[in-house]
Amino acid sequence: MTGSVLAGFPATTIRWRDQLDTPAVVVDLDIVERNLRRGAEFAASASVDFRPHIKTHKIPALARAQLELGACGITAQKVSEAEIMADAGLDDILISFNILGRTKLQRLRALAERVRLRTVADNATVIDGLSSAFSGTPDRLGVLVELDGALKRCGVPTVEHAMDHARKVDRAAGLRFDGFMIYPAPDHWQDALTFLAACKDAALQAGLDPRVLSTGGSPDMVKFAPDANVTEYRAGSYIYNDRALVSMGGASVSDCALTVHATVVSTPTPTRAIIDAGSKSLSSDLFGLSGFGMVRNRSDADIFALSEEHGHIEFADGAPAVGDHIAIIPNHACVVSNLTDHVQFVRGDYWVGEQRVEARGTVQ
Amino acid sequence: MTGSVLAGFPATTIRWRDQLDTPAVVVDLDIVERNLRRGAEFAASASVDFRPHIKTHKIPALARAQLELGACGITAQKVSEAEIMADAGLDDILISFNILGRTKLQRLRALAERVRLRTVADNATVIDGLSSAFSGTPDRLGVLVELDGALKRCGVPTVEHAMDHARKVDRAAGLRFDGFMIYPAPDHWQDALTFLAACKDAALQAGLDPRVLSTGGSPDMVKFAPDANVTEYRAGSYIYNDRALVSMGGASVSDCALTVHATVVSTPTPTRAIIDAGSKSLSSDLFGLSGFGMVRNRSDADIFALSEEHGHIEFADGAPAVGDHIAIIPNHACVVSNLTDHVQFVRGDYWVGEQRVEARGTVQ
Repeated sequence: MTGSVLAGFPATTIRWRDQLDTPAVVVDLDIVERNLRRGAEFAASASVDFRPHIKTHKIPALARAQLELGACGITAQKVSEAEIMADAGLDDILISFNILGRTKLQRLRALAERVRLRTVADNATVIDGLSSAFSGTPDRLGVLVELDGALKRCGVPTVEHAMDHARKVDRAAGLRFDGFMIYPAPDHWQDALTFLAACKDAALQAGLDPRVLSTGGSPDMVKFAPDANVTEYRAGSYIYNDRALVSMGGASVSDCALTVHATVVSTPTPTRAIIDAGSKSLSSDLFGLSGFGMVRNRSDADIFALSEEHGHIEFADGAPAVGDHIAIIPNHACVVSNLTDHVQFVRGDYWVGEQRVEARGTVQ
Repeated sequence: MTGSVLAGFPATTIRWRDQLDTPAVVVDLDIVERNLRRGAEFAASASVDFRPHIKTHKIPALARAQLELGACGITAQKVSEAEIMADAGLDDILISFNILGRTKLQRLRALAERVRLRTVADNATVIDGLSSAFSGTPDRLGVLVELDGALKRCGVPTVEHAMDHARKVDRAAGLRFDGFMIYPAPDHWQDALTFLAACKDAALQAGLDPRVLSTGGSPDMVKFAPDANVTEYRAGSYIYNDRALVSMGGASVSDCALTVHATVVSTPTPTRAIIDAGSKSLSSDLFGLSGFGMVRNRSDADIFALSEEHGHIEFADGAPAVGDHIAIIPNHACVVSNLTDHVQFVRGDYWVGEQRVEARGTVQ
């Protein structure tokens, strides 16, 4: 596959920097395409099914490009996110979140009638709910048992717990045990492989078929090698990259496709600049970093505080002038996508068009 | 005024807790109405024009209720926010942000043709831009010079700087010098009054008319007494209140009108609960506090981390059960309003209706 998977988004002849109103979230499709290809090459070399997480971009056209480059399907985090992707023709979806409650279970069942759907569970209440929603349906819902990746989030902590739930899923009306899923905390990706391996062995011994062994994480893609205990890899941020990924060694600055563009609106001191992008544009996610983003081409800049509409920056070497534009690589690209109704697609210096972030703000 | 200013939003007979899908942002209008009246009483007793900041709620109907209770107008932070309010009939607006750039200045000028508009400036570039946009218009644009409230944000640091800009505004074609504006950092509200007083005196000596002397902040409303050097008070959060305001003594828990409701989706340990509300619902704003919100009726709870769609909570006395609902008072209500397309209006136990957050996501 050598042609552009984003050929439907050609550059115009408009130089976008001349006409940009700020704050604006700018996505460079040339970099996106490079990142997408790198993801696809990773999946091929790692011999895994690749299932990108669309929470990073929330744009069906980009999900379709991921499929075109060989992804087996997509990952979504919400029923509502999955519904929007299904409406756009994405037809193989893992919802990597415990689904609970009458309304969501009804929607999940409706969704399963139109796409190949799989979800997760890490406790009996969720399994019982899924089973009651899907018992009596012609096809059973595929369920992965979620394992704890040391993130202090969801997931069972031991093989014994995992097998209890695997057996319960296998016995439950309307459900099909499909395997295990884990999301490793930073620096725990090898522990995750060990945990998956142990669960796989236990499942096989119990006569179950753990056909899907799913791990993930953009930061660890560079370290991952083919592994007999992993069949599927989920990654979201690799499509855009961000300051957190750069700081973890998972990407370089030139791989960062999404930037927040802002205008200096005040320079109250010779070294302080206030910009028109605050927490409503950049989010307050620190991700363990110091400062709320990285100012491109100004390594002396420290975004030391955010108000909702103001970014507060110290420039050790002297603030830019009022009216100047700056570009910021955010700490966390996914939350920036969620904050904005639209992003500006560009290719290098040229504008492509304004793109709606269709799955932004999905709640339930 | 004894009748309800929110009479247009009556309670239904539906008990909302029974039907709520989570995560959901719930706004109790009985508490809102109490808070609004308290704000109006404050303004009357403090002998100030009250100009609520609509960034907290972003809902024109609530802005209209603020006007009905005696507010002189509203404050907005963006041209786009002001446009939405103007479309809804709000006709006296202060945009408390330096406006720069051709597109925004054109929009500002269009806005001035249909509402009573005022804005701010703290530097010559902004004054020049405003002047070039408004010179030749029949009415001049009112401009307040912004003073530094020790927030390391916008605002000039000295009376001399303030007067330089005041004189420049006064001389500028298309502009009218209207006075001074400050937003005090926590614990700096008295310094702000001193700064306003000095600027007022200097302006009067220079033959200028500082008819508006504007300070603000919900945290300090409880401390404020009538002051000859303040004519206008801006406050946003007082309509909803939040954990930050409670921690600063500006409100009590029972005054918090906005809560984020979530479902426990996993209890990986006896004391850890994972809920379906993360940074996409609560935001990562810490506001100097420990933890990402306050769980109502569970003082033993610590929301120690947020993923985008998961909240991670330690309950020292034992986690609730999977499927249980909890209510969270967020650290910062304004950013929660910005994250959600809709809030659920309720009155006590009864549902009122789903309300769109019309000015959510305003960017430029």
